[in-house]
Amino acid sequence: MFRTATCGELRLADRDKAVILAGWVQKVRNLGAMVFIDLRDRYGITQITVDEHAPAELKAVAENLGREYVVQVSGKVTERSAKNTKIPTGEIEIIATEIKVLNASEVPPFTIEENSDGGDDLRMKYRYLDLRRAPLQRAMMLRHRLAQEIRRYLDGQGFMEIETPYMIKSTPEGARDFVVPSRMNPGEFYALPQSPQTFKQLLMVSGYDRYFQIVRCFRDEDLRADRQPEFTQVDCEMAFVEREDVLEVFEGMMRTMFDKTLGITFPGDRFPRMSWREAMETYGSDKPDIRFGMKFNDMTSLAKGHGFAVFDSAEYVGGICVPGCASYTRKQLDGLTEFVKRPQVGAKGLVYVRREADGSYKSSVDKFYPQEALAGWGEATGMRPGDLLLILAGPKKQTLAALCALRLEMGDRLGLRPHDTFAPLWVVDFPLLEWDDETQRYYAMHHPFTSPKTEDMEKFFSGDMKALGDVRAEAYDFVVNGVEVGGGSIRIHDGRVQSRMFEVLGFSPEEAQAQFGFLLGAFRYGAPPHGGIAFGFDRMCSLFGGSDSIRDFIAFPKNNSGRDMMIDAPSPLAEAQLEELRIAVAKPE
Amino acid sequence: MFRTATCGELRLADRDKAVILAGWVQKVRNLGAMVFIDLRDRYGITQITVDEHAPAELKAVAENLGREYVVQVSGKVTERSAKNTKIPTGEIEIIATEIKVLNASEVPPFTIEENSDGGDDLRMKYRYLDLRRAPLQRAMMLRHRLAQEIRRYLDGQGFMEIETPYMIKSTPEGARDFVVPSRMNPGEFYALPQSPQTFKQLLMVSGYDRYFQIVRCFRDEDLRADRQPEFTQVDCEMAFVEREDVLEVFEGMMRTMFDKTLGITFPGDRFPRMSWREAMETYGSDKPDIRFGMKFNDMTSLAKGHGFAVFDSAEYVGGICVPGCASYTRKQLDGLTEFVKRPQVGAKGLVYVRREADGSYKSSVDKFYPQEALAGWGEATGMRPGDLLLILAGPKKQTLAALCALRLEMGDRLGLRPHDTFAPLWVVDFPLLEWDDETQRYYAMHHPFTSPKTEDMEKFFSGDMKALGDVRAEAYDFVVNGVEVGGGSIRIHDGRVQSRMFEVLGFSPEEAQAQFGFLLGAFRYGAPPHGGIAFGFDRMCSLFGGSDSIRDFIAFPKNNSGRDMMIDAPSPLAEAQLEELRIAVAKPE
Repeated sequence: MFRTATCGELRLADRDKAVILAGWVQKVRNLGAMVFIDLRDRYGITQITVDEHAPAELKAVAENLGREYVVQVSGKVTERSAKNTKIPTGEIEIIATEIKVLNASEVPPFTIEENSDGGDDLRMKYRYLDLRRAPLQRAMMLRHRLAQEIRRYLDGQGFMEIETPYMIKSTPEGARDFVVPSRMNPGEFYALPQSPQTFKQLLMVSGYDRYFQIVRCFRDEDLRADRQPEFTQVDCEMAFVEREDVLEVFEGMMRTMFDKTLGITFPGDRFPRMSWREAMETYGSDKPDIRFGMKFNDMTSLAKGHGFAVFDSAEYVGGICVPGCASYTRKQLDGLTEFVKRPQVGAKGLVYVRREADGSYKSSVDKFYPQEALAGWGEATGMRPGDLLLILAGPKKQTLAALCALRLEMGDRLGLRPHDTFAPLWVVDFPLLEWDDETQRYYAMHHPFTSPKTEDMEKFFSGDMKALGDVRAEAYDFVVNGVEVGGGSIRIHDGRVQSRMFEVLGFSPEEAQAQFGFLLGAFRYGAPPHGGIAFGFDRMCSLFGGSDSIRDFIAFPKNNSGRDMMIDAPSPLAEAQLEELRIAVAKPE
Repeated sequence: MFRTATCGELRLADRDKAVILAGWVQKVRNLGAMVFIDLRDRYGITQITVDEHAPAELKAVAENLGREYVVQVSGKVTERSAKNTKIPTGEIEIIATEIKVLNASEVPPFTIEENSDGGDDLRMKYRYLDLRRAPLQRAMMLRHRLAQEIRRYLDGQGFMEIETPYMIKSTPEGARDFVVPSRMNPGEFYALPQSPQTFKQLLMVSGYDRYFQIVRCFRDEDLRADRQPEFTQVDCEMAFVEREDVLEVFEGMMRTMFDKTLGITFPGDRFPRMSWREAMETYGSDKPDIRFGMKFNDMTSLAKGHGFAVFDSAEYVGGICVPGCASYTRKQLDGLTEFVKRPQVGAKGLVYVRREADGSYKSSVDKFYPQEALAGWGEATGMRPGDLLLILAGPKKQTLAALCALRLEMGDRLGLRPHDTFAPLWVVDFPLLEWDDETQRYYAMHHPFTSPKTEDMEKFFSGDMKALGDVRAEAYDFVVNGVEVGGGSIRIHDGRVQSRMFEVLGFSPEEAQAQFGFLLGAFRYGAPPHGGIAFGFDRMCSLFGGSDSIRDFIAFPKNNSGRDMMIDAPSPLAEAQLEELRIAVAKPE
């Protein structure tokens, strides 16, 4: 037996016990007469002491230990004179009687502590060492805990986890597929699934009723920061349900997750809900962060007609009232103006109104707007003395987006977005279709199997092309703190509705058949009403862990070029391997 | 709400309740005055009755229902006059007040009942319909249950489930990899993992201590019957352990699985163990079925020297005593002779000895062996009156294998291998190395990181090439009913042992570095002693389900050409897609 206890479990109550511990050397302090070793494993750190009574050989072993050596220590649990209240084992130490080096270690390329001195690339290359650090170990533990609790909850609700294939068929629509050449079927390729969407719908046709899967998905997209070519999804589907049934089950799941992993319970019967339209109008985003207020005020009609060309010519003028920031300096306001003018925010400029302590108003457009006009704005936006009104103007869509960025920035500055506060929200009633000006056609906002809302069915079947843009889908997103954690919809199960959907999307029946043939085929043999949802599991983990980086919650992530720096993948193949697969690497032109 | 109850839950105690059910029409019986409908969902079947009081419209709806229509039925739970004791809902029926067709169905291509009339190919093509059949639903449910219980058990034992990447690096050694061309890194490829072996060892280096994962693995092999290109593994690894620690934890897991899913508990402190050598000598297999006896008897020395050339020239003569089969007819014995002569069994012929009711012996080689000689055989093999001794002779390795096939055949004939009886077994002390005559070198029997047994370390380091063949590995297999369910080993963590291993396998240090570089690199920074095991999950499911076919326990399997018949994958790619990936399909020569 290599150990009788871990490095995290011994306490004062274990005093005088003979124990064997094993772990990694975190630190050695050689005080001459005594040597202290911090021994680490994933459960904690325990102090090993080689005291003045230790034989010379033992002391020699202890003195020669290096960082990250793997050792086995026999000794006796003893009360410490200088207690360390910062760690749970801080009241004891192990007076060593034997130390056996199980494995030596070279000096690691960076320090393995709470905060490492290693750069990103170095830590990615030596991921196996970075993973020894406590923050990553906590992240992996949280991920494990969340996955376990999700499975427990869904199992308890009668869901079955069913594994769907990873080697499937490539479909041209949507994001790019990763593909896999087939040696047994030369010239043919499998695709890695972007999601098990069609399979989960097939399972509903097969009568499985309540399905889920924690499953890897693959998307060959140009990688933005913190997006991974392979990612994990909590994929769920239910039959014989309406929207309310789905929301209820998964709100229950999220409540259970928050409770079991963070000890957080939310008041009230249900999480707040907001229509997509309201989210866009009042937060400029379909995933609003409602941890704080600063809702948008539509000031278009108030602002126009005073001779200020910027506002007069704008499609939309909107403002947010920032509490307590009337004292912002010129420099701070210039900084905000610069912020909104950044290309990724995209506003032309920023107008501000201060409400002074005495109730009066002061703005950057005093020239055009007298006190009474500003007072009207103040009233409309609920400004109190000491508040600051920030106004953007321009084309509506872009201005709402810019105002959203400004609002989040102000939330950050005012500390209104703490990582340990969670504001869950259902965003519902998304538009069914998005018009694309370039190709002059509608695209499905979610996917072509999303059901229109029953109330909008007449509009959906009407010949009015423009009205189609107003048709709402029975689609919903689960949003927390401005992060889209999950999304789903009720699916179409009525052949007539599905045909109309393809018609609206400009697919001929033959095209629809070619792309979705086996699913449409299945639907002919008795498809039940069904709907579902999928959660981004990496994102969920980072959210629960209070981090913005999903990479920290994936054991072996890839970098922004889709490269695994540790194993050095991808890599060229041997010519023989290519030949066997009957493929060739094309020469760059 | 689509339903207030499932088709499996209503009982006599629910009498007079108004209910809504939804499901698929299994059968319609139109008796003129009344119409009976069997309504099915995954929970069961409930009888719906449209009785003589029903309005004409309702009756018309009921009469026109076809098989597999999806309907919603409102009605009242009523005691049945003709009870069906075969199903749990058989005491009640629902007197329908409304039937709503949620979706019609075309006539399915085969019957959706316990036993289908559809052929293999048809059922694979319409897998979503085959999955509606009760045996497949039970299989999926069992699979779900097993996965849940495994996770629960391992979580309880302090194991963390950690997801490892699916897009990794191709390694030339071992089975063929499936590969994935990288668009972002033209000319380079990822590989799909054959197992997370190296990653789990890295996690031990990272200090995760107790890791597991239920994970998909991929192998591009020529498919034998019932082998899938993608399969699922329960992959586990532990640090600071010796063999006993691993066996204890996973024996516990298997006991829990048997108990929780089948209600089977095994007597005794631990499962039987058998050395690889004993398994080979007495069962001719490294995965013996010990549900029954008929152990091999080495009769080589007894059989030689009587002038029977077949035995005299044989390296090995072995026999099994088949109880109670002395009455086998000439025809039956000829059948057995034919069986052993099949190419896949490979024996040259079969010698038999009958022990008659009076205790005397009668054999096919009476010419060479007098009664006393046969009596000697009878004594050595424990024959009792009425028993039949079956003897094969030839080169040892092939003869042991042929005798193994014969033994299993006799076990089947005598009904000694019932699907609901389980005989678990640990096979231990496998050879470390296998000599290959063709390439004149040793290969690792398990993989190059498997540790030799401490007792055999001296032999391992000795210069005697032949002695290397006798070095035993700290490797173990978990076997049930002749099926290898899992296998693993204690790994090498000592650099000196690892270098010797590579030397023995004929790898230069450079070759070792090229192939296993990042793992060897990781081992330089403090690798703990570790070991693990992996279970074939598909196989485990079919074993627990009492089936020989793993395909029935995979929701969407591929056929023997690696093809998914339902979605028709793999398939050719569009030229544009290939161009983007910078690969070309090579023309067949």
